[in-house]
Amino acid sequence: MNFDALFTDQIDQLKADGNYRYFAELERKCGKFPRAANHVEGEKRDVTVWCSNDYLGMGQNPLTIAAMCEAVQRTGTGAGGTRNISGTNHDHLLLERELADLHGKEAALLFTSGYVSNWAALSCLGSRLENCVILSDSGNHASMIEGIRHSKAKKVIWKHNDVADLEAKLRALPANVPKIVAFESVYSMDGDICPMREIVEVAEKYGAMTYLDEVHAVGLYGPRGGGISEREGLADRITLIEGTLGKAYGVVGGYITGSAPLCDFIRSFASGFIFTTALPPAVAAAARASIMHLKTSNDERTRHQAQVAKLRAGLDRAGIPHMMNESHIVPVMIKDPVKTRMLADYLMQEWDIYVQPINYPTVPKGTERLRFTPSPLHTDADIDHLVAALSHLWKQCAVSHAVA
Amino acid sequence: MNFDALFTDQIDQLKADGNYRYFAELERKCGKFPRAANHVEGEKRDVTVWCSNDYLGMGQNPLTIAAMCEAVQRTGTGAGGTRNISGTNHDHLLLERELADLHGKEAALLFTSGYVSNWAALSCLGSRLENCVILSDSGNHASMIEGIRHSKAKKVIWKHNDVADLEAKLRALPANVPKIVAFESVYSMDGDICPMREIVEVAEKYGAMTYLDEVHAVGLYGPRGGGISEREGLADRITLIEGTLGKAYGVVGGYITGSAPLCDFIRSFASGFIFTTALPPAVAAAARASIMHLKTSNDERTRHQAQVAKLRAGLDRAGIPHMMNESHIVPVMIKDPVKTRMLADYLMQEWDIYVQPINYPTVPKGTERLRFTPSPLHTDADIDHLVAALSHLWKQCAVSHAVA
Ligand SMILES: Cc1ncc(COP(=O)(O)O)c(C=O)c1O
Ligand SMILES: Cc1ncc(COP(=O)(O)O)c(C=O)c1O
Repeated sequence: MNFDALFTDQIDQLKADGNYRYFAELERKCGKFPRAANHVEGEKRDVTVWCSNDYLGMGQNPLTIAAMCEAVQRTGTGAGGTRNISGTNHDHLLLERELADLHGKEAALLFTSGYVSNWAALSCLGSRLENCVILSDSGNHASMIEGIRHSKAKKVIWKHNDVADLEAKLRALPANVPKIVAFESVYSMDGDICPMREIVEVAEKYGAMTYLDEVHAVGLYGPRGGGISEREGLADRITLIEGTLGKAYGVVGGYITGSAPLCDFIRSFASGFIFTTALPPAVAAAARASIMHLKTSNDERTRHQAQVAKLRAGLDRAGIPHMMNESHIVPVMIKDPVKTRMLADYLMQEWDIYVQPINYPTVPKGTERLRFTPSPLHTDADIDHLVAALSHLWKQCAVSHAVA
Repeated sequence: MNFDALFTDQIDQLKADGNYRYFAELERKCGKFPRAANHVEGEKRDVTVWCSNDYLGMGQNPLTIAAMCEAVQRTGTGAGGTRNISGTNHDHLLLERELADLHGKEAALLFTSGYVSNWAALSCLGSRLENCVILSDSGNHASMIEGIRHSKAKKVIWKHNDVADLEAKLRALPANVPKIVAFESVYSMDGDICPMREIVEVAEKYGAMTYLDEVHAVGLYGPRGGGISEREGLADRITLIEGTLGKAYGVVGGYITGSAPLCDFIRSFASGFIFTTALPPAVAAAARASIMHLKTSNDERTRHQAQVAKLRAGLDRAGIPHMMNESHIVPVMIKDPVKTRMLADYLMQEWDIYVQPINYPTVPKGTERLRFTPSPLHTDADIDHLVAALSHLWKQCAVSHAVA
């Protein structure tokens, strides 16, 4: 059997649909963010990155860099084992304590990524709680969807951010089955924020456990970076808060926080936690330094929101439609995969602006977009340059539409 | 509903069965491996680690440490995005090229861990190749099992390392369905090695693709560390070789290698590859330095095998039964979870020897064991000390058996 031909067929279909992905090859340079070198066919060129999820530039903060190097020198480059078999280091436990404190919870558990934390925790909960039903927001991230699917628990999907629909679905379930309401705070692609208080209240009313993904909010919202649940004073009413160390905290890794029995349960039974090498202690040390810094410093958050507001105002002035939301994510809808790629290619080639075209399966087909993520390190001049570039493109498009 | 009570019930059951896990808290210290500090209730004590999967001590090798620190200083602590959205760095591509070369393949693809590489690749292949059947060795690792299960493909389990059984099962399948034979080279808990040539030949005979996990062999076997498939000259006949960067290479991460269409297929469709932050470029740089070193240096491998042989000889002289195998893994069977933990506790408390008790679900119930992994950095004196400790315990046990 010619397997390569089977693979190529499916790849060709992707290409025909305009959904094939070309990764931009970057060279991050310490102290230069959001500038990076883009490699194309052996040539390098400096570009401004406008689509990073290193939202605050913490991945190049001198504090995190120093913490990581210090820990590499002290402990080496790896953990040397799974958490159970020689892989638990002092640095992991310090980080878990830091994370529990961040969300005001009893305990925390570290995973190799946010993806794995969602997948492993939800598949463990769904498969081990007898007759469990998971009520999942229709906009939930792939990692939650796959975890729920893997658990084989009964799944009920409720309309995105629609509490009335959630309540109707909760009401329809028997009182005595365990229920988990799974949702996110900031949705990464539209940037909208969930009605958290209402969700928590309806979950409490029906005795459901709440599972909250704060991946795009930790570090960014709340007085100590505890996310939307901290900002809204709701963290103590949420059963499980999940987050990442790879976005605002600028490193890599994921975690859950909750009660001690909950974390011990996942620690003891989740395949994706048990059967894998622990994160390097140096990664844990760097993440901890980043979290500790953002617990007390608000400068990054304040300037982040200021630059986001400036970009939105600039786009408004230029008449460039962007999706309204309350978060730091600025989507400009194009609604066609080929056009989105064309625009992104133009921005890179003509304006040294790097923004990755966002296409299926990251967003539904027909909702392709450019997704801009301003950081505190983007200058006002960077924003002006981006708005000028987009204005130029928009005018060209208008002209080409007119003559077409 | 009282969720904590549900969690506690299941935890209590684990405890009653002797299967509850206590993680040893270690402090790795650069240059001191296999020595580490063990934290117990605020006190620290130096112990010798006898169960690490940093098999060659590369996690503390000056080369890997220098590479990681250099790259942290150069690129920062994180990748800043998924591979598609601003997360592909030059260091990732250099590492992927290195890995493809290591196994003599066209291409390679990096994942956040070996677990994720198995899970993501197998679930992608099994779900996207129409009517695919996966023939899985009964001893396969959890990450492969979960990947196969998640794919919802038809799964056929063949008897561990039994090529006749594999052939019977291949023969029973229709000729025109895509078949994947999934197996490992070195099985991590028994340390036995698969009959690779026979497996490859029978797979070829039935037109099946071969999926090989070399997690416990890369870096350790073959003239350049390409694993058992390199040692046996079979790499070019295996469709996909999977490995980890977290064991012999001493860092963290996982990968697959194979044809360009195969890797592009997984890159384009595997959820576990797409929807997660890329590994920090500095992790990629450290792993690459480790691989490059072990491509040309055989000293670590030679000394590794010598120390393994010395430990086996010592155990034989002391009359301590250990499982025979051709690899570097030395299991001493205890066959009871409570006794295994008791022995491990003794070794730690009385002899400063750290070996984690291995219990269910890592091994089947009734096959609990101590699993020793000598490294090139364990001295002859370390080995003598371990053998003396075990002899002492064995005599005590004999005595207590006699009086019982
Ligand atoms: C909502 C959400 N949850 C989880 C993840 C996974 O986190 P990580 O990148 O740490 O794997 C992502 C993105 O990557 C995400 O957008
Ligand atoms: C056979 C096998 N495959 C895969 C893995 C997972 O690799 P990693 O630790 O890099 O996640 C392991 C152990 O952890 C293993 O023993």
